[in-house]
Amino acid sequence: MINIQNQEDLISENVSRDAKGALTFAGQDLSTLAKTYGTPLYLYDEDRIRMRMRAYLSAIEKAFGGRGNVQYASKAASFKRIYEIAAEEGMGIDVVSVGEIYTAYAAGFPLSRAYFHSNNKTDSDVAFAMDHGVGTFVADNAEELYAIDREAAHRNIRQRVLLRITPGIDPHTYAAVATGKVDSKFGSAIETGQAARITALALSLPYVSLAGFHCHVGSQIFDASVYLSTQKIMLTFIRDMYKAHGFLAKELDLGGGIGVRYVKDQPAPDIEGTLSSVAEAMKETCRELEIPMPAVSFEPGRSIVADAGMALYSVGSVKRIPGYKTYVSVDGGMSDNPRFALYGSPYTVLPVLPHDGAESEICSVVGRLCESGDILQEGVSLPADLVRGELLSMLTAGAYQYSMASNYNRIPRPAVVMLKDGKASLAVRRETVEDIVALDI
Amino acid sequence: MINIQNQEDLISENVSRDAKGALTFAGQDLSTLAKTYGTPLYLYDEDRIRMRMRAYLSAIEKAFGGRGNVQYASKAASFKRIYEIAAEEGMGIDVVSVGEIYTAYAAGFPLSRAYFHSNNKTDSDVAFAMDHGVGTFVADNAEELYAIDREAAHRNIRQRVLLRITPGIDPHTYAAVATGKVDSKFGSAIETGQAARITALALSLPYVSLAGFHCHVGSQIFDASVYLSTQKIMLTFIRDMYKAHGFLAKELDLGGGIGVRYVKDQPAPDIEGTLSSVAEAMKETCRELEIPMPAVSFEPGRSIVADAGMALYSVGSVKRIPGYKTYVSVDGGMSDNPRFALYGSPYTVLPVLPHDGAESEICSVVGRLCESGDILQEGVSLPADLVRGELLSMLTAGAYQYSMASNYNRIPRPAVVMLKDGKASLAVRRETVEDIVALDI
Repeated sequence: MINIQNQEDLISENVSRDAKGALTFAGQDLSTLAKTYGTPLYLYDEDRIRMRMRAYLSAIEKAFGGRGNVQYASKAASFKRIYEIAAEEGMGIDVVSVGEIYTAYAAGFPLSRAYFHSNNKTDSDVAFAMDHGVGTFVADNAEELYAIDREAAHRNIRQRVLLRITPGIDPHTYAAVATGKVDSKFGSAIETGQAARITALALSLPYVSLAGFHCHVGSQIFDASVYLSTQKIMLTFIRDMYKAHGFLAKELDLGGGIGVRYVKDQPAPDIEGTLSSVAEAMKETCRELEIPMPAVSFEPGRSIVADAGMALYSVGSVKRIPGYKTYVSVDGGMSDNPRFALYGSPYTVLPVLPHDGAESEICSVVGRLCESGDILQEGVSLPADLVRGELLSMLTAGAYQYSMASNYNRIPRPAVVMLKDGKASLAVRRETVEDIVALDI
Repeated sequence: MINIQNQEDLISENVSRDAKGALTFAGQDLSTLAKTYGTPLYLYDEDRIRMRMRAYLSAIEKAFGGRGNVQYASKAASFKRIYEIAAEEGMGIDVVSVGEIYTAYAAGFPLSRAYFHSNNKTDSDVAFAMDHGVGTFVADNAEELYAIDREAAHRNIRQRVLLRITPGIDPHTYAAVATGKVDSKFGSAIETGQAARITALALSLPYVSLAGFHCHVGSQIFDASVYLSTQKIMLTFIRDMYKAHGFLAKELDLGGGIGVRYVKDQPAPDIEGTLSSVAEAMKETCRELEIPMPAVSFEPGRSIVADAGMALYSVGSVKRIPGYKTYVSVDGGMSDNPRFALYGSPYTVLPVLPHDGAESEICSVVGRLCESGDILQEGVSLPADLVRGELLSMLTAGAYQYSMASNYNRIPRPAVVMLKDGKASLAVRRETVEDIVALDI
């Protein structure tokens, strides 16, 4: 296989071009996949998912001497096959709803290794999670703690719980994914004294077994110093809770957020580097604070699946409005990927076929939905001789695309196909128009 | 029934408070509905939908002497029951995908009265629509016109077509719904000469029967002068096409966009007033241009269903962060209504139960999804004694909520319930966790 483009332009080493210049993913021919499964299409490189999971697990082993866990934050991409892979790799999972719990359950995932998050667990959510044996609840607020205590009492169990704490860190990422700030909807802030009060509450509830604390400071973090500040704040809080209540946290869950590479000026995730510097810092902080080192958890989602994913679209029209702009419309859109519409997220978009010698032009890649905001990406350089029926690929499309897909405009959701060892297999079948009306009376 | 709040605060006359101060919708008790169907829940006042449809049809009758059509823009809310109502009321429909076509078909809607929109119809979409007898195609671009001509040739029919034209109007609404500007992804611009060229192309295709032109200048338009400018530009274009090609458009489709009342400083839709002023202006323009008056079409979506809808949520937690803000978390969120996350859309949110004498505080009403951007509404004044389990209602929630719903966070979509004559009936059943994994292999 010869790379005829600069490797840098292809963003990730599982994207390449074959001898004829056609784009490949996980070594497979994209035109063949599009012919077999149709477009739009979500593709996953299974080995890449496993590689990233293993990178986390081995970093925990190396840097923390195995005293820790990794939970895959499955909201990034949630379907049965992903949970099967996580189970095979020995990962934990982070789930946020009964839908995710049920999907993992249906996949045979051992739910004792599941951590149940979210800022608003209803009484029936709590009961459902206990009925399915979810190992750890990450309680967000007092109402939830009472609900957990009540449901655990009915079952005469002590439910393992972490408390979500807001360390007051602004990771300087975009607002929608900055969740560690004091004014976040998540958790209890240390700064306001609320974190200490909810700790006291948790310790007072007979059917709650408090194991430690969780925090999550945001997404797309490229600067490890965010985690270094976070561990210091959280370990100090652990020390303070020990002094105040004699409660020594067994586990500190530092959440997720390691950045991924959507465009070439972003670095690829540095999992080992980040975790090893966090481990060093934590050891140092624990020495300073004179507390034992807790077990540590990480909850990566995006950095596990993002560059394991690619989206494939077919071009429907190329519209040049002289003096204004050029639109390339594809057969998907904000219904299968709302991230540009929601956040203005950057992506790398490439034509699948080679266009040697063609001039390029700057295009807006838009979807097929009846809405002006239905834009997949602005400012994309594409060959000027692109035509209807051609394939476009969107790279680093494995996180928060399928999981955010809707039926807006009543458009069926694409299939999800796993690629491994030169073979392709369906993980989620394409939605049909019959599926679309299945719930209608 | 006594209104104990000022009528203005309740936004729409189908929202009221009973003698005990509890909120009602279409005269029905919301606590009972929540108990029967669960929350989150979408409710529709069927009589209000029919009233709005009739307002359009009677305005066409009165102002245009019946020479026109109204197509319900079903992307605003698309499920079988809505198409049944549209059929019963003698409405046409605007559909944008095979999913909408199939839903209308499954509801027994006569598809000869359907107009097929979208900026990117694939070859298989075109074939599907013809196979189901869709009456009119609104062709967006040259690629589509060729596809329509090819598919019609296979069937040896002449397909009725309107061309989507961009009049170059900026209705000064927010960018995401401003679609009549020259640089829109939709249609062909008059200003650049492309509208004239695509007209010539359509006239040259043997299996395309060009009936006229379509335009749509945006959404949430409160100022009728936008339509008055639009009709003048479009009728002038019709005159020019008559002069250039001897083609006299039979139909001018002016799209939709009449604004609805989300918050009290917005007016309710003025359907009759708007259509009657458009009719007067069109007659005057036709006299000036010396052309016969074409039949006129309108394609209202939001103004048919928005204030016929309400969303109901249960409160999960009330979180006060002293010195920062107060969060009220509910059991839904951006998965059932992404409009605040996408556009910052305003809504009126009211507690269902009375809180006489309670102090009020300004809250962020947020959802249950694991994402900071999961906000339903900011700056909502709510009683300070709100507790977990209480109901909150979101008014004017009938347009672009159910239709934009996703399974983000793997959260099942709410049920849709129709209210009529004091009775309630399911239109779309609540999604289950089993439904969530139905497509997973």
